[in-house]
Amino acid sequence: MIHAHVGDCRWEDIEVLHYKTGSGTTFKDVTRQVLFDEKDIAFQWRYFEVAPGGYSSLERHEHAHAVMIVRGRGNVFLGDSVHAIAMYDLVYVPPLTWHQFQPLGDEPLGFLCIVDSDRDRPQLPSPEQLAELRANPGVGEFIKT
Amino acid sequence: MIHAHVGDCRWEDIEVLHYKTGSGTTFKDVTRQVLFDEKDIAFQWRYFEVAPGGYSSLERHEHAHAVMIVRGRGNVFLGDSVHAIAMYDLVYVPPLTWHQFQPLGDEPLGFLCIVDSDRDRPQLPSPEQLAELRANPGVGEFIKT
Repeated sequence: MIHAHVGDCRWEDIEVLHYKTGSGTTFKDVTRQVLFDEKDIAFQWRYFEVAPGGYSSLERHEHAHAVMIVRGRGNVFLGDSVHAIAMYDLVYVPPLTWHQFQPLGDEPLGFLCIVDSDRDRPQLPSPEQLAELRANPGVGEFIKT
Repeated sequence: MIHAHVGDCRWEDIEVLHYKTGSGTTFKDVTRQVLFDEKDIAFQWRYFEVAPGGYSSLERHEHAHAVMIVRGRGNVFLGDSVHAIAMYDLVYVPPLTWHQFQPLGDEPLGFLCIVDSDRDRPQLPSPEQLAELRANPGVGEFIKT
């Protein structure tokens, strides 16, 4: 019932899931660890880490994200603007809000991300939606796909 | 949608709730901050902090707790034994499991604690249950009420 932290945001008996990067993927250099996923709770608690130069998927969905930064620093694109994020900052991603996390500097950006267990699949932007996002000053040069 | 961390586990626009300690209370020197409590999520994300010399309530309930230590170190009584806990350790408190958190050393013990929004009220031990817990070697001298 206890998973000891073994350093650098890795935990005893919790697997680090590496996503394969390649053609057709929508993220770069992201790992995921599922910290809590129990039958007696209505939520899933994950830890994501984005290596320097990487980025999370530019996506949106009906479900919300509750996020806390616990490693490094970076920026998040949220809805219609980009915000600096650092240790222990809290980010709420409301339903159907476009978002993308990117690290800044030499350290990975690590964040806790909690979601309802019962949730929809992410939506990726259509070419038209992407063109619209890219036309937004301050956002267009930030987002990566 | 962003609450910046302002240092020492305090956040912009998030109130620190101090519990009054006195006769009839079951905890000592505990503060609570509600980090996320939104209509679109099925969980509530809280941050608790126990000052040196303090302790959380000795209690149990039908709902589970998912916990991560983010400040200081301490011990947790969980079910039938006491475990050391330190930065970023994860603790799962299953349904109907007696538990109590206590700091160790000069720093407060701070932890994230996530619960289902829809949950039952905590149960405190009856005199008989308390006598049984106190009879457990290693536990009896730890728990405080």
